[in-house]
Formats: sequence, structure tokens, C-alpha cells
Amino acid sequence: MNLRLALVGFGNVAREFSRLLLSRREWLLREKGLSFEVVAISTRSRGSLMSQEGLDLERIIKLREESGTLLGYGPGSTDLSTPEIIGGCDADLMVELTTLNIGSGRPATDHVRAALEAGMSVVTANKGPVAFAYDELCSLALSRGVHFRFEGTVMDGAPVFSLVERTLPGCEVTGIRGLLNTTSNVVLGEMARGANMDEALDVARRIGVTEEDPPLDIDGWDAAAKIAALSKVLMGAGTNPREVDRNGIRGISTGDALKAAERGMKHRLIAVAERSGGAVRTRVRPELVGPDDPFWSVDGTSSAVTLETDLMGELTVVERDPTLAQTAYAVFSDILLIADSLRN
Amino acid sequence: MNLRLALVGFGNVAREFSRLLLSRREWLLREKGLSFEVVAISTRSRGSLMSQEGLDLERIIKLREESGTLLGYGPGSTDLSTPEIIGGCDADLMVELTTLNIGSGRPATDHVRAALEAGMSVVTANKGPVAFAYDELCSLALSRGVHFRFEGTVMDGAPVFSLVERTLPGCEVTGIRGLLNTTSNVVLGEMARGANMDEALDVARRIGVTEEDPPLDIDGWDAAAKIAALSKVLMGAGTNPREVDRNGIRGISTGDALKAAERGMKHRLIAVAERSGGAVRTRVRPELVGPDDPFWSVDGTSSAVTLETDLMGELTVVERDPTLAQTAYAVFSDILLIADSLRN
Repeated sequence: MNLRLALVGFGNVAREFSRLLLSRREWLLREKGLSFEVVAISTRSRGSLMSQEGLDLERIIKLREESGTLLGYGPGSTDLSTPEIIGGCDADLMVELTTLNIGSGRPATDHVRAALEAGMSVVTANKGPVAFAYDELCSLALSRGVHFRFEGTVMDGAPVFSLVERTLPGCEVTGIRGLLNTTSNVVLGEMARGANMDEALDVARRIGVTEEDPPLDIDGWDAAAKIAALSKVLMGAGTNPREVDRNGIRGISTGDALKAAERGMKHRLIAVAERSGGAVRTRVRPELVGPDDPFWSVDGTSSAVTLETDLMGELTVVERDPTLAQTAYAVFSDILLIADSLRN
Repeated sequence: MNLRLALVGFGNVAREFSRLLLSRREWLLREKGLSFEVVAISTRSRGSLMSQEGLDLERIIKLREESGTLLGYGPGSTDLSTPEIIGGCDADLMVELTTLNIGSGRPATDHVRAALEAGMSVVTANKGPVAFAYDELCSLALSRGVHFRFEGTVMDGAPVFSLVERTLPGCEVTGIRGLLNTTSNVVLGEMARGANMDEALDVARRIGVTEEDPPLDIDGWDAAAKIAALSKVLMGAGTNPREVDRNGIRGISTGDALKAAERGMKHRLIAVAERSGGAVRTRVRPELVGPDDPFWSVDGTSSAVTLETDLMGELTVVERDPTLAQTAYAVFSDILLIADSLRN
């Protein structure tokens, strides 16, 4: 089986994923009977490439890292827009890794919709399409007989969506509690050691975990998008990120954080989805936790989610110290699961 | 699709599973197109039943709980031995839930082997067959075109084997650290509050978590069997439970536990599998953990496992306060996954 891939967005995650894919080329062929070629790479402002014969991914990664652009690759360079490339590239699967406008989920949602309509399966690590348009995109994928997967949208590569879908058959998720925003967690940790908000944000920036726009993190937008995505997919909620009852960590001072530490507590930005009557309520807010809370030891860039279920009780998944490699793995694993489905 | 089930062992877990199965009869038919009938129930000393027409599971549960035996059910009562029943019942799937002899893995391993040889798929919550004979039983299942699943052997219903198999494709497990024995965890918790070993064991017995033979728990045999099973299945180790470097909690006194608590630490019985050169080394021993350890908050009957992997980094799964219902769910989920496979 040969898989023709289109990459939309070619930033850090896309390049890390591309390196992983190249490093597993022989393994994929040997263990999964799977070969691949990249037939298009589309970026917003760094040039785009399309070639039915396949692109030299290794050379493109090098070019992008040395020159900051895809211009200069030569054959296959194109001025076509992303929608035109999606419509024209004849790929089997689109990997969508653009940056998110949290207020609208665009343009990622448009890219995903266009690809599904063109009969491609889609893998994304972008919260937007799931948080804003999950139902529509799922129906569309179903009607076209293709697949839509998005494990990388929450907790990087840690299986959360796959966990419920593939290992908890017949089990209903009745509640979700998550520690989902890395920047807030790093910032709160630094403040508990005496840093002020700006110093703490600098630390998060140096680690490279902050969104381009810090309010996305510290005002709870990122966590809101993630709990909206989780509650939609796992609990059938109708929430979009703007409807989440949202309080970020801006109201917490260094003094508050130090006082909590003295009392043997820590602030955590916690996202919750719970059933209330027939509806699902979602909220994001800072809470104080003690050592007996499963989220106590989830420091720094680590993240965690607890699922309450009807048949399996309470299950917590913790991902420790992820890097870009884990988000790249999320995309890789989604592609493998889709390849398995396409084969059957 | 109709699934004909044989139950070997009809103790607490088997009856809890039977109740779950009955409660989901309509759901199975509606959502999975799956009907089932129980064609045999075999017990060591409480009577056995076999009927090609199917048994009345609801009535049998009631009979067993009221009279302590299956004798008196009427039609289908049989004096055949378990091997004879396995050979003669013509089931599609055997559910093996007998009690374990940890020194040998028998008779469970014999039951599983006989069922696979007879062309049945097998689900068990019994560590023995996996810890002692995983490779052989897997080859046998493969050669007969049937399935062998065992999620309930470690951490009740929490997906650990399924997690790796079904949600981490292409990912290699490079190390395992587990808090796997419930009795030890309950006992250590009680001792840290001042109880002596006997008082602490009484608490564990009242909760109903101890093995029939307490040394299985407090001398680390149960944890050894579990880390042997995990390391075999997830890391390809060749360990059997007797070869695990095993230290239980018998050497820990109430004084030790109280002293640890004063220092803000807790004893945990921790099982580890790690690569060392070409081999996998396994050990079970008590360790002191502090609040920053992900196992700190895993108190009482809760359990946890941390997987180190090549592509997904470090992932921890915590199951909180499980009951028999979670072990029953493990069996139920394995059956659903097998039914899906048989359909494809």
C-alpha cells in the first residue's frame, strides 16, 4: 500500500513529524507493508510545493531550516493557494498542522473540510477543527468513506481519543478533568518559586511551549479549546470554546502562589466537563490541589487527564515532559491507524 | 453474529461479569449486532453445566448465590471434568476465571491451551497463563485463527495491554514501572497509620482484595506474576514469575512505615522491568516515594503503571479505587474486541 501525503503547514511540528516519517521509512515497509510519498507541502508565507511524482522531503526539511523558506526547491514550486493545492494534489491523506485562530478555528477547519470533501483522510494536531466543527467534519468524513483523526490536539501524543475509542468499548465517559495547558502549568510553577508573571512567561517561552499569543494560554483559551474538543468527542457535548466557563491564571499573583506553597498546596489550571441534567457543562479555572491529588506531581510541561466512566470507573493518563517528538508521534500514530482501516 | 460462551470458573469475578453481560444484552444487539448464549459453566467443586441449547444465566447466578452450588439447576447438569467440557461444549469463546496457582500457572494454563486447541478464542483475567506460557499460547491462537486476550490480568479493567497494542502503533516499550499489588498497597497504608501487619492484612481481607493465600501478596508473588506478564507481552521478555528478583513487604515494620510518614514519604511495592544489555531485567521491591512521585497519590486499592517508550516518552495510567466491576469490564471489553476481530 502506498500512501500519498499532503502537508498543510510546515512549522516545527510538521518538520519533526517529517523527520520521524523518514526515519521509519524502512520499518513502515517491512512491518506494515506501507510506503509513502509527499505530493504537496503548502505554507502560508514560506512557499508551497506540489508534484504528482513526489517531493524530496529530506531536501525540503534541510532547505527550510537553512533558508527559512521552501522557495528555491525548484520543480514543483507553485503559487497556488492552500485550497487550490488541496483540490489539486490528489493525495490520500492530508496532514494539517497550521497555527490556530482560537476565536474561529480557522483556517484549519476550512482546510480539513476541503480535504475531506476532496476524498482525503485527514490527520491534524490542531484543536480548532475538533473544538469548532467536530460533528460536521465527522459526518463529512463518514459520507466520503475517509477518516478524520486528531490525537495530537490534546496532550500531544498521549492517547486520549484513541484510548476511549479503541480500548474502552461499550464504556461511557461521564466526566473529564484535565490539566491541559502547558504554559499555565510552567508559569504557576515558576510563580510558586517567586517569579512574577512576566518572568514566568519568559521561562515558558524559552522552553518553547507558549502559543504565539500568550493570552491564549494564561487566559485559559487553550485549555477551553481542549476541554471543548474532549467533551465533544468523548461525551457528545455541544460546546464550542467560546461557551466554556473560562477563568485563566491572570488573577493569581506571585504572593498567592507563594502562600499556597507555604500551605503545601499548588495552583493548577484545571479544565472540567461534567454532566448536569441532560447537558454537559464545561469550565476552566485555577484550583488549589494538595499532594493527594493525582495532578499534584504533574509539573512543568507534563499534562494529565482523568476520565470518569460508567463501567471502568476512574482512569487517569499522565504524559510526562513531552517535547515536539510526542506531537509528531501523535500524527504518525494517527496515520498508522488510518492505514490499518483503509486496508480492512 | 451469535457468540457461544463457555465459562470456566464461576466465582465472584465470573458472576460480576455475568451480571454485566446480562445487563448489556439489548445494547450488544442494538449497537454491535451481537447476541450471545452461555453453553457451558464449569467449576472445580460446585457442579458444572453444559447445554447446546444455552443455559439460563440469570437463574444460574441466583442459584449459585442462594445455594452456593450449581447442583440443582436440572437439565444440563454434568459430571464431566473441565477438560471434557472444554472439548465437548462447542463454544466460540471460553472465559477463564479460575483461581491461580502462582507457582505453576495451572490449571488455568491447561484450560486456555485446551480451549485454543479446540478452536475457541479465550479471554482470561488470570495472570498464570500469560506469565507462564504467553508465547506458546499466542502461537497456538495464531495457528488456530482464534484470539487470546487477558486485559483483566493486570490493573483490573484499566487498559494496559490494549493501550500499547491498539493506541501506540509503532511505539516500543523500553521500560515499565508498576504499582500492581493491591493488598500490599492497602497494608502499607494501614501500617503508616500505626497498624501492625496482621491488623493491616485484616483490613485488606475485609475489603476483599487479598489472594486466598496472603504470601502471594505480601511476599510479592502477585506483583512478580504481573510484571512478568507485562514485560513478556509489552517488551518481549522471557521472564517467568519465579525468575523475577522479588522482595515483598514482609520486612517492613510498623515503625519503618511510621518513620517514613514522619519524613513525608510512603512505602510502595514497586515492580520494574528494564532493558539491560540485550535482556529485560525484572524486579519487585518496596521503595520509598515522595509527593513528587506519580505513584504517591495512588492509595489503597488503586493501581498504576508507567510505560517508558521510544516515541511517546513516558506515559502513566492510574486506575482509582477499582472494584470487581472493573475486572468484569476487562473481560467484557476483551470479548467486544474479539467480536470485532471475528467480524472483520
